[in-house]
Amino acid sequence: MPPATPSFDPGLTQQYTGPLLRAINKDGSFNVRRRGLRGIGSFYMHLVNLSWPRFWGLVALAYLAVNIVFASLYTVLGPRALRAAETDMGLGAFGKAFFFSVHTLTTVGYGDLYPLGLAANIVASTEAAVGLMGFALATGLLFARFSRPNAQFVFSDHMVVAPYGDGNSLQFRIANRRSNVLTDVQADMMLMTVQQDAAGQLRRNFVELKLERKKIFFLALTWTVVHPIDETSPLAGMTAADLERLQAEVLILVRGYDDSFTQVVNTRYSYRWEEVKWAARFATAFEVSPAGHLVLDLDRISATSAVSEPRQ
Amino acid sequence: MPPATPSFDPGLTQQYTGPLLRAINKDGSFNVRRRGLRGIGSFYMHLVNLSWPRFWGLVALAYLAVNIVFASLYTVLGPRALRAAETDMGLGAFGKAFFFSVHTLTTVGYGDLYPLGLAANIVASTEAAVGLMGFALATGLLFARFSRPNAQFVFSDHMVVAPYGDGNSLQFRIANRRSNVLTDVQADMMLMTVQQDAAGQLRRNFVELKLERKKIFFLALTWTVVHPIDETSPLAGMTAADLERLQAEVLILVRGYDDSFTQVVNTRYSYRWEEVKWAARFATAFEVSPAGHLVLDLDRISATSAVSEPRQ
Amino acid sequence: MPPATPSFDPGLTQQYTGPLLRAINKDGSFNVRRRGLRGIGSFYMHLVNLSWPRFWGLVALAYLAVNIVFASLYTVLGPRALRAAETDMGLGAFGKAFFFSVHTLTTVGYGDLYPLGLAANIVASTEAAVGLMGFALATGLLFARFSRPNAQFVFSDHMVVAPYGDGNSLQFRIANRRSNVLTDVQADMMLMTVQQDAAGQLRRNFVELKLERKKIFFLALTWTVVHPIDETSPLAGMTAADLERLQAEVLILVRGYDDSFTQVVNTRYSYRWEEVKWAARFATAFEVSPAGHLVLDLDRISATSAVSEPRQ
Amino acid sequence: MPPATPSFDPGLTQQYTGPLLRAINKDGSFNVRRRGLRGIGSFYMHLVNLSWPRFWGLVALAYLAVNIVFASLYTVLGPRALRAAETDMGLGAFGKAFFFSVHTLTTVGYGDLYPLGLAANIVASTEAAVGLMGFALATGLLFARFSRPNAQFVFSDHMVVAPYGDGNSLQFRIANRRSNVLTDVQADMMLMTVQQDAAGQLRRNFVELKLERKKIFFLALTWTVVHPIDETSPLAGMTAADLERLQAEVLILVRGYDDSFTQVVNTRYSYRWEEVKWAARFATAFEVSPAGHLVLDLDRISATSAVSEPRQ
Repeated sequence: MPPATPSFDPGLTQQYTGPLLRAINKDGSFNVRRRGLRGIGSFYMHLVNLSWPRFWGLVALAYLAVNIVFASLYTVLGPRALRAAETDMGLGAFGKAFFFSVHTLTTVGYGDLYPLGLAANIVASTEAAVGLMGFALATGLLFARFSRPNAQFVFSDHMVVAPYGDGNSLQFRIANRRSNVLTDVQADMMLMTVQQDAAGQLRRNFVELKLERKKIFFLALTWTVVHPIDETSPLAGMTAADLERLQAEVLILVRGYDDSFTQVVNTRYSYRWEEVKWAARFATAFEVSPAGHLVLDLDRISATSAVSEPRQ
Repeated sequence: MPPATPSFDPGLTQQYTGPLLRAINKDGSFNVRRRGLRGIGSFYMHLVNLSWPRFWGLVALAYLAVNIVFASLYTVLGPRALRAAETDMGLGAFGKAFFFSVHTLTTVGYGDLYPLGLAANIVASTEAAVGLMGFALATGLLFARFSRPNAQFVFSDHMVVAPYGDGNSLQFRIANRRSNVLTDVQADMMLMTVQQDAAGQLRRNFVELKLERKKIFFLALTWTVVHPIDETSPLAGMTAADLERLQAEVLILVRGYDDSFTQVVNTRYSYRWEEVKWAARFATAFEVSPAGHLVLDLDRISATSAVSEPRQ
Repeated sequence: MPPATPSFDPGLTQQYTGPLLRAINKDGSFNVRRRGLRGIGSFYMHLVNLSWPRFWGLVALAYLAVNIVFASLYTVLGPRALRAAETDMGLGAFGKAFFFSVHTLTTVGYGDLYPLGLAANIVASTEAAVGLMGFALATGLLFARFSRPNAQFVFSDHMVVAPYGDGNSLQFRIANRRSNVLTDVQADMMLMTVQQDAAGQLRRNFVELKLERKKIFFLALTWTVVHPIDETSPLAGMTAADLERLQAEVLILVRGYDDSFTQVVNTRYSYRWEEVKWAARFATAFEVSPAGHLVLDLDRISATSAVSEPRQ
Repeated sequence: MPPATPSFDPGLTQQYTGPLLRAINKDGSFNVRRRGLRGIGSFYMHLVNLSWPRFWGLVALAYLAVNIVFASLYTVLGPRALRAAETDMGLGAFGKAFFFSVHTLTTVGYGDLYPLGLAANIVASTEAAVGLMGFALATGLLFARFSRPNAQFVFSDHMVVAPYGDGNSLQFRIANRRSNVLTDVQADMMLMTVQQDAAGQLRRNFVELKLERKKIFFLALTWTVVHPIDETSPLAGMTAADLERLQAEVLILVRGYDDSFTQVVNTRYSYRWEEVKWAARFATAFEVSPAGHLVLDLDRISATSAVSEPRQ
């Protein structure tokens, strides 16, 4: 039997069996692992995406490792390979070799230790070049790490089902974590549900959720993104129990132009059925200072207040 | 009572009480403060956006501070930690430690001072690495500061209400401060007013102002952006007194492609009611040199001439 | 005779005689050579696009060459130009000059060798500056090489003609080689054939192939790009023999936004007639791990299964 | 009298008196000079846009100047400020100071010369920091200079008026100077003429010229951009004499996506009436090599052949 013309697919697969984890993790990554071919680019990306403590730990480790390797080479070349400024440097043979390696790799080169003979000079020349290249790599990596406008959006912890016009709406709220300005901010919302097809196989189903407003000119304070649950909405008439049964997950794509980094920012997020608060409303997340400034409180981005009489 | 379907909102809030400052400052930032969570990105952005004197001041301070810290460590290790080339270096113990620290941090390493023993060598090895990383950071920061196409547009000091066709128009003028070319330059104009709603609460109101031309191919000289005040304009029939009563502020978003930085440039600006000149017209801001060049005078970008018979 | 209004042309020429190679190579480059004027930019691009072994080889070669040039200069200046810390450095005259050059170029400057007199000092001052500039170049090059999101898409080895609705479709499959997320991924497909015109000259013919879906929100797993062979398709009713006779090549353009590099990624690819599998279907390239993760197997991106009853 | 609603304006002014130079120079810059306020960004841009010989000249000059300044400082501090490794360095007092400055600025620091006393050490510490910052600037500048995809398009020397369908067309030809691929290449053409208005003042007039094809998928070989001179064209019925009388200049804007630099490329160009060849046609600028490669000859990008029977 030929497959039917597929329905709307945002780029995740529809066929799916087995236990179900969320599609999009809280850090915007997908629950997808990779096997098979890799390139050098993957390693670079890994270094760029590492947390800061791990990054510095790795830098320190690499610094240590390279010095140990070169120190071993100088030690192998024998005691005549390195000349010391004085007889007693307060260091053993390996210690001398190690710190001479440091002097060379960092290009500090005090000169209290220096190489003698062809072999030691060749190793030291290589090490100085390695040091410069390693430093060039570190410069590029640091710049890449800093200049990436990642993790800029703050999302509310929950979605809410809030009154809207005569009915309800599904809402989440975002703010800019930083003090720079995001312009031309745009949002997309999709509903992913899991349903059994005719053959009894579980299939993921995707349907776009229409937004009251897809784009704002600038994100200076907060933006509450609203999907009105009208009769055209796939959520019309649904209850919390329905969403759980369908293992509903709302996939979100937010894009904006970051003025400070002069780059497009692009974030993914998702809420699962258990992260939806019914009959709630987002509370104001800012106040006006005595001087007349708006003060946005990022810790209150998720603040909601209950709605007394929820509508069906 | 459920909130009504909200009207056009450019991304600032509509609910607002208390004293009112302008929404967009003259440097394009918003009158919004932030509280709560921060990331390392905010600090980086702060360093990128700092004025040049402050930036260099901070660099000098950091240089001094790091050297003082390491000099203290060398001093703590005692007089035997550093060996000097001669008995009298013309420096005290801390002075010797401080300048040895400088030699190490900058990787100059003259060798007139060098570390003795394991402890001093370990500290010096660490310092050389710190110096290289700090320098890598500075390189990245300097590049980021220079390569950002910020503050490129010059806006006229005032908007003018100038004759246009049979009626009037609201105009401002921009130019490119630099000699490079901006292409595909685009403008958006919004009117923000403050009005009391039925419940007596002050609310901000936003409405887009239609432009005679939203986009030009290139900004070589000046561009006078024109909102025709026709019957569809929210400004139709308004006077200066009306604008003041409504605390009117015109929010502006200008975008363009910067050929030299190969980046999109994005600027915000605003004019408040007191920055609107009625019955005026922008004067020519350029002249033709004897050799046939157009000479743009950036100091005359705000030059206006009065209109004798203003229309209503 | 005036030329007729040309038909759709994607940017390759239509006039063509002689032996025919594929238009787009497997690495996304075009089968086009260049003659004539060149700029410094071409050399930069060459260095950026070089394979890593070649790049490091070139760096090593340049390092060696520059040191040999400066060593020769010091040698020419005579034995008094360089002062050694001790009489026997275990090196010949050129060896001393060479390693002094290394100390200077890398700014290691141990000081066991140093320049004497005006001439040697001038040469050494120049060499230190050359070293710093060369290192600045290397830093920029390394950053450029790493920060380019190239070679990210994996294409299936073959296209397949697979059942689709009541008829057939032409399909290929792509995945993201890396673990980052690509959003707003877009595809274009064109058919290039070679036909004889009225004058008997061979001409390339280009026609766009309509896609079932031109764009997906994110490429988390794989994307099977599908051209339905309906009655409007130029492939309607064609057989494998027809495609060979027409020397058919399907040109492909895939674009997406790379979140990690915050850049647009743009890839070209092509399949020739002999790379089309008839009556086949792509097999699933992922499985579900016990923990509930989707595991994408990049080595199975080209896996197909035969279709038992192909349709005409 | 109020000004009439202005007509199409690409961003250059319409009012204009005096001698007329071309609007767009051959390097894509506009014939516009600037007066008045400047920022630090202008200086950066100047350094980025400088020719390579001038850039290196400037770097050398700055290197010399900074060393002379610091050498003067060391000289002012007296003969005891610097200690030399030996009595006769073969250099005068200023020579010693100058080369010590070089050792410090480049962080080579051989140690054959080193600072003595507080004052000299402070100056040297400052100089080492200045050296590192200057080098950081140079690194950023070099990277910015190399990574800009400028001057990539080659334009034909002339436009041609060539037969097209039953009539004529105005054409120019472009190619990519480099061997990388440009995708989504787009062109805009405008006609600028100078005409007298009712008041007898010379005014520039702008009108867009419709193109047979505004965009191609990729620029692998050459692209002949064609404006068909049909009855809707402002050039309909015009002769070479007409164009000269109107001082016609065709303004051109070409944009494309550069895959190697992952950036948008944006070029301006213009042809004046005297750069239009009537009754000519572009000759093929490529040939097929024996191995089946297309070989593009960039020197033949302007090659035309006469058309025997031009049409009116």
